[in-house]
Amino acid sequence: MSDLKGACIIGQSGGPTAVINASVLGAVQAALNAPQITRVLGAANGITGVLNQRLYDMSQEDPAELELLKFTPASALGTCRYKMKDPDEDPTDYEKILETFRKFDVRYFFYNGGNDSMDTCNKISKFLLKHGYECRVMGIPKTIDNDLYGTDHCPGFASAAKYIATSCMEVKHDACCYDTGMVTIIEVMGRHAGWLTAASALATYAGAGPDLIYLPEVDFDMDSFLADVERVYNATNKCLVVVSEGIHDKDGKFISEAKTNSNDGFGHAQLGGLANKLAEIVRGRIKNAKVRAIEPSLLQRCATHLASTTDATEAYLAGKTAVTAAIGGDTDKMVAFERNNLYGQYICNTKLLPLESVANFERKVPREWINAAGNGVEQAFIDYALPLIQGDTGMKIEHALPRFARLKKVLAKPCC
Amino acid sequence: MSDLKGACIIGQSGGPTAVINASVLGAVQAALNAPQITRVLGAANGITGVLNQRLYDMSQEDPAELELLKFTPASALGTCRYKMKDPDEDPTDYEKILETFRKFDVRYFFYNGGNDSMDTCNKISKFLLKHGYECRVMGIPKTIDNDLYGTDHCPGFASAAKYIATSCMEVKHDACCYDTGMVTIIEVMGRHAGWLTAASALATYAGAGPDLIYLPEVDFDMDSFLADVERVYNATNKCLVVVSEGIHDKDGKFISEAKTNSNDGFGHAQLGGLANKLAEIVRGRIKNAKVRAIEPSLLQRCATHLASTTDATEAYLAGKTAVTAAIGGDTDKMVAFERNNLYGQYICNTKLLPLESVANFERKVPREWINAAGNGVEQAFIDYALPLIQGDTGMKIEHALPRFARLKKVLAKPCC
Repeated sequence: MSDLKGACIIGQSGGPTAVINASVLGAVQAALNAPQITRVLGAANGITGVLNQRLYDMSQEDPAELELLKFTPASALGTCRYKMKDPDEDPTDYEKILETFRKFDVRYFFYNGGNDSMDTCNKISKFLLKHGYECRVMGIPKTIDNDLYGTDHCPGFASAAKYIATSCMEVKHDACCYDTGMVTIIEVMGRHAGWLTAASALATYAGAGPDLIYLPEVDFDMDSFLADVERVYNATNKCLVVVSEGIHDKDGKFISEAKTNSNDGFGHAQLGGLANKLAEIVRGRIKNAKVRAIEPSLLQRCATHLASTTDATEAYLAGKTAVTAAIGGDTDKMVAFERNNLYGQYICNTKLLPLESVANFERKVPREWINAAGNGVEQAFIDYALPLIQGDTGMKIEHALPRFARLKKVLAKPCC
Repeated sequence: MSDLKGACIIGQSGGPTAVINASVLGAVQAALNAPQITRVLGAANGITGVLNQRLYDMSQEDPAELELLKFTPASALGTCRYKMKDPDEDPTDYEKILETFRKFDVRYFFYNGGNDSMDTCNKISKFLLKHGYECRVMGIPKTIDNDLYGTDHCPGFASAAKYIATSCMEVKHDACCYDTGMVTIIEVMGRHAGWLTAASALATYAGAGPDLIYLPEVDFDMDSFLADVERVYNATNKCLVVVSEGIHDKDGKFISEAKTNSNDGFGHAQLGGLANKLAEIVRGRIKNAKVRAIEPSLLQRCATHLASTTDATEAYLAGKTAVTAAIGGDTDKMVAFERNNLYGQYICNTKLLPLESVANFERKVPREWINAAGNGVEQAFIDYALPLIQGDTGMKIEHALPRFARLKKVLAKPCC
């Protein structure tokens, strides 16, 4: 065990998930129990809270409220999309972070996020090392996109997948119960990786799902798409299509219309409106059909009411493992999952990956898990995803509605 | 008890709900057990199945599959939006119905729908009476809009209400966890009545819901709306707004843009795109905010995974009551609910209303249940809605996904 003593900071970054707070809970509980950790601090809105010295004293929280974090959606500590500059170009932010760390005697930093957050972790870690400040830095994965490199899957994906699959089953029933022709197009989140869109195939596996699925891993061809829709529609008078927001043509140009002129902090174009655009095009081609576009938007990433307990348990484990590994001496790593089968039973183990190997890489759906025509997925994907969505939500109910965690968020004072 | 013997037809009409099939189950099970009913027929796609003599023999269904109808979304028998002409203008359809009834010896007709369906029931009943064909006609209510006249509430409303309230709680958490300014606008179904939109207030009651709610019962004023949003946004850096798709100005003109040029069969304009339109206007007013529009669309009316067991049980009761009342001699009536309190406990009893008193009337949210400013609802609405959403879904789960009913749908042959 390590003899590095000091405070820890736990922060959350990027788009939230249905179970991201389970990771915070895992980390906070492990840290509160660790004699090496003198104070457990939560960063208000991720790295911006570290920059501004807005840190919550997590020991002030009611333990029963903390427990509710396991099934509370969105980032309970607050999140951000702040992109720090390269430290070689402009070290201002990194100097501020070091200042905060010194002021609060921070020796452990845990950051819960996606690709960009792992890059942030990596840069902070390198900067601290260069300046001789001893601090263990660990990344805790999360993303509904499931696109983090080197891990079998990411906490947050399975719950969003379960939401998409369940909703697709319900919409399939609704969209098919009329006697009139109907084409329904559902747009699912996922900029470059189609994992969540592929999850709609679980609905088809369970008896009622999309007829056609388009992932960004395959170049989208409008003529093939229209021919696909027409073929299904002519045969059944209905067609349910699920498309990833990130589908693009062979030149890499997004099919979606750019929405207004807003960009997020990382310079990614804000996508959206794709389903409506495709619906308009289908209307022009299939004259008699009623064509409906559905964009579940935020609903798909915050639906804790359909969270998978497997996902929440693993998210918790990821947070806890980050703390125990750091106390054990690890730094500059991300917690990752590897899958094992024991007598045919799904088993999820944790492992540690160097941050450098994860940061800014994207893991995509293997081409062989997508069918040859590029309009559906193979059984291999179902076999991959099905174990992850198991277990009903453990969300606490009060008055027939969710009872989510209510944190006090008491700001901590510097120790020196 | 009645001595009228013959077959019965059960049909479903209009937009489905999360529990509309619970009513079919109630009616089918009661009819299968009734010695007066010689054959239980399900109309394929509502009245069009009666017109085309496409009727399913419900006795051919596996009883265990039928049981699953209690928590299967959408209209399991199929639905339609076919509008019959006035029999005085053009009796063709009514003559066809009479022909079907004669061919299949139908003496009981149960129709599960909203306002328009009750009107259809009423016209059929009058036509049959005029032509001396003895047949008992009963309406079974359903609508997520909750706008049927003379009943305390409608089956289907509570489950959609629970979905809207739960989703609003989750979106509130998501939309408020960033450190940047954010305005989120959710568009809820409801053409003329704001019951379902008002249900979003249950989220606020439960700790995290909309800041502003606009119902069609109050004329919408764009300037007041923008002032409301700006006030909330300036105070909190966030604003969650829920609007009914049917909000209109003081001249009755819908605020929403008309979507394409499609109309449904009843000549109602198809609404939609309202949230996007309002978002665009808010973007112009509050320059720094990220403004997001969310339209849950079909998801809100088919979300059996969040169905209220109270709702499903009452929907079942409505179907069963229609059959037992008809066997007892009633005709030309709709089953309705009245609410009683027994030692502070919510009790729902059924009653029968003349179809004539229900058809084509709309029941709106009382003005005194909406706040004076017209941007929220009062506690009276919460007290009304809260008992209705109680009880988790009883949906059967298989492989962590819904296991909805799979009917054989064996077509019945005429008996003569």
